Parts: sequence; structure tokens; C-alpha cells
Amino acid sequence: MWTLTKRVLPHHTDYAGVMWHGAYVQWLEEARVEALQAAGLGYAAMTAMGVDMPVVTLHLDYLHPLRHGDEVSVESYCAGQQGVRWPWASRFVCRDMVVAEAMVNLVMVREGRLLRRVPAQLQEVMDQLVSQDL
Amino acid sequence: MWTLTKRVLPHHTDYAGVMWHGAYVQWLEEARVEALQAAGLGYAAMTAMGVDMPVVTLHLDYLHPLRHGDEVSVESYCAGQQGVRWPWASRFVCRDMVVAEAMVNLVMVREGRLLRRVPAQLQEVMDQLVSQDL
Amino acid sequence: MWTLTKRVLPHHTDYAGVMWHGAYVQWLEEARVEALQAAGLGYAAMTAMGVDMPVVTLHLDYLHPLRHGDEVSVESYCAGQQGVRWPWASRFVCRDMVVAEAMVNLVMVREGRLLRRVPAQLQEVMDQLVSQDL
Amino acid sequence: MWTLTKRVLPHHTDYAGVMWHGAYVQWLEEARVEALQAAGLGYAAMTAMGVDMPVVTLHLDYLHPLRHGDEVSVESYCAGQQGVRWPWASRFVCRDMVVAEAMVNLVMVREGRLLRRVPAQLQEVMDQLVSQDL
Repeated sequence: MWTLTKRVLPHHTDYAGVMWHGAYVQWLEEARVEALQAAGLGYAAMTAMGVDMPVVTLHLDYLHPLRHGDEVSVESYCAGQQGVRWPWASRFVCRDMVVAEAMVNLVMVREGRLLRRVPAQLQEVMDQLVSQDL
Repeated sequence: MWTLTKRVLPHHTDYAGVMWHGAYVQWLEEARVEALQAAGLGYAAMTAMGVDMPVVTLHLDYLHPLRHGDEVSVESYCAGQQGVRWPWASRFVCRDMVVAEAMVNLVMVREGRLLRRVPAQLQEVMDQLVSQDL
Repeated sequence: MWTLTKRVLPHHTDYAGVMWHGAYVQWLEEARVEALQAAGLGYAAMTAMGVDMPVVTLHLDYLHPLRHGDEVSVESYCAGQQGVRWPWASRFVCRDMVVAEAMVNLVMVREGRLLRRVPAQLQEVMDQLVSQDL
Repeated sequence: MWTLTKRVLPHHTDYAGVMWHGAYVQWLEEARVEALQAAGLGYAAMTAMGVDMPVVTLHLDYLHPLRHGDEVSVESYCAGQQGVRWPWASRFVCRDMVVAEAMVNLVMVREGRLLRRVPAQLQEVMDQLVSQDL
């Protein structure tokens, strides 16, 4: 599990005093980018190589609200390649409780085309992420 | 179908020149709020009555990227109550092509508790939304 | 004055039930893009021509809070070129009251360099914006 | 100086590959909240006490663009109370260069009214922030 630690700030909250449901998506992205970085490949460096990893599906289950000021762990792992998709699972944990779960599917793209064969350097990084050998 | 018309602005885009995947969530919310308004009940008025409709699940499929400047229709409908859930389906259409599809499940909450019986005024509005009699 | 009409949605609000101060910046951008569009030049078309108009200074005075559900007019005008800068003034009006005022300075840039001479097509559009002959 | 370290993520960028000008406002808020936390008072705890610190003016000068993947330090300090205002200065530093500067004015509010006398617990925290004795 790759863990990102965050705090619910005013700009994440809405009128109900809880984290707005769309704000979770930013944290999911930050968790992925920081996990890639820890595995040795900056995401910006990857895009500079011409390879992009767009999100093709996003699923979120909100179990308990997060409140202003809450400290939250976003625990993520990459489940390994499934065809052209890289599924990435995350759960949001606060006060020892899973408060939300997410599943994102990524693909690799170069010049607007699906990349079926992964460049060696990138494969090595993804292997590390899948095995959690960070 | 309730239709919201939007344009992809700079703040929606990312480094790849396409709409960032998390930005779709704002449009989904705007579509719901404006549909409720058209059915005769402002969402802020509903929350002032003490009733809230939080999102409990969010699902998005991204089929084709949206580019800077694109004009997009967000077509939504409420599929009718399913137990305590109100499923709300949307599709994003650009140049006569469905570019993304979304399914959101809402529940009704009062004072932090699930509302199993819907207040009459709200039921009337939701019935209108379900029948698309806007 | 170019007028954009908006509603304060849940994603604009924070825990205090008011519009989060950073969310005003999105509306300022939308007002500029729609004013350019009305004057005959899409902003995305301008960037496709290789010309960009980045914001170099941003100033906002918040006079009264905006609340969830409020309907707001964003009234903007371009004050005319001042050296390389294009100052753009806006005010946020709600219930006949000015609730916030903004001043943004834009420059024109091509390939990362300040554009001192404005392309004819763009000059024509900016002249229209300055004279409010929309 | 209180320093917050951030990375420019895809959701911060726009079509031009640079950090969108409005996204800086989130980092300014995070810097203030984390500085308060380091001085011993969580911002959410302050709002739970009924005291809020809304932004009344915001000023940003953008000197150099920030690019996708950049690591940025946000260095902030509170300049001390000036009447009812608490001015908070920040600069964004990347590759040993100041790329943007910000000045925010905050006020203290309780039940919608300006707080002219600051509660003792809060005064102590603000004194620490002003003296940078973190």
C-alpha cells in the first residue's frame, strides 16, 4: 500500500461542513503521482517522454463523511495490468475507519493512441508499484 | 432528459490540453441543481429545509477526451427511487458523440440520518424529475 | 459591461456556507472567455493561433459573503491596453449589492514571449471589448 | 517564514502546461492552515470555537510560470495585526527563483461580526506566527 496523508482544508469542504465529493479525485491523483515518484519515475517526466496515463473509468463509494480538519490517509495500490488497463484501488481512512473506497482504471497512451506494449523503463516502475516494492 | 450546456474553459483543462477527469464532477452537480431548480425546488432551499442529498456513489466512464473550447451538453435524468437511493444518469455529448457517461447515486439525509420517507413537497419535485415533466 | 450570470453551487461553498474565496477566480475566467466569444473570437481559437493571454496580476476585494444558492451577476469590462497589459475589471453583484470587486491584468504571449504588437484580428476583438460594442 | 512544499500535479495545470493561476489560492490556504497547526491551533478547532478568519483581500503577482511536475516552496509569514486586518504574505519559490508573490488580508469574525478583541488563546497563536517562533 502506498500511503498519502492529507488534511481536509476549507477549500475541500462544502456548506454541509464535509468534504465535497468531487474533491476526493484530486487526492486520488496526488496518491498516484507520488507513488510513481517514489518508484523512481516522475509523472511529468513520463509525459515528457510522450507517454500519458489518462483515467478511463472512475468509481467512488462514499461510506462516511469527512469533516473540516480531519486527517486522512489515502492508501493505494496498483493491482497489475489487465489487458490495456491498469486498475488502481484506493481507500480513504480516517480515525481507523474506511470512509471511502475508489477504483480508477488507467491506460497508457502515446500520441493519442493506446500503448499496448509498455516501454521498458515504465514497465519496471509499474512492476515495482504492483509488487509494492517501494 | 435535462440538458446543461457548458464550454471547456482553461481551468477545466490539464497539461494535455483536455478536460481534467475530475472537472466533470462539477458539471454533474450543476446539472442536478439546475434540474431541481427547473422542477421548482432550489437545492439551497432544500438544504434550508434541513434535507440534504449527498452523493453516495459516483461512476464515470471517459470515452473520448474533451478539448479546450469544446461545447458540451450534459444530458441527465433521474431514474426513480431504488430503495433509499436516487440514481442519476448523465451523458456528456460533444459534436453528436457521447464522450463520457456518469452514474451517481444520491440519498436523502436529515440531521445526519437517512430519510426513508420523503417529504411531500420534495416527492412532488422528484416525481417531476423522474417523469421529465419539466 | 459584459454580464455573466451564475449560481453558487455546493462545490463553490465551504464549511461556513459561503462561497470559498478561491472559487471567484473560475467565474472571472469564464466571464473573460465568454466576452471574447461574444466579440467574435473563441479563446481556444486564439490559443490555437499560438497567442495566449495569461493573467499576470490578480486582485480581489471581498465585501460581503455569497451564500449557497445565491444568483450572482459578474459584470466585467476591459479598460483598454496599458503598455503590454490589458486590465480587466469585474464586480460581483447579488441582490442589487456589489459583493466583490476584481482587477486582473493580462498580457499577450506567443511562444513564451510578450507580444508587443497585437495581431490585427485580435486587436479588432479587443477594441470591441474595450468599447463594449458587443 | 513558514514553508509548505508542493508539487504541480495534472489537476493544477491548464492546456498551456503551466499551473493555472487560480490554483495558487489553494496552496495559500494550505500554507496558512498548516502554519496555524504548527503554532498549536488547528483551523478547524478555531472554527469550532466559533471564530472564523475569512479572506477579505487577495493579491497575486505571477512572475514566472510553474510547469507540470515542478517542486515549489510556498514561504509565508504573518506580518502582524493592522487594525482589524491580519496581512499574510507569501512567495512561491521554484529552482531558487521567486515565481509568484501573494498578499492576503484576513479578518477575525464571530457570528458574522468582526472581532475587534482577539480571544487570548488565539492571540497567543497569532503572536507565535508573527514572531515566527514555530
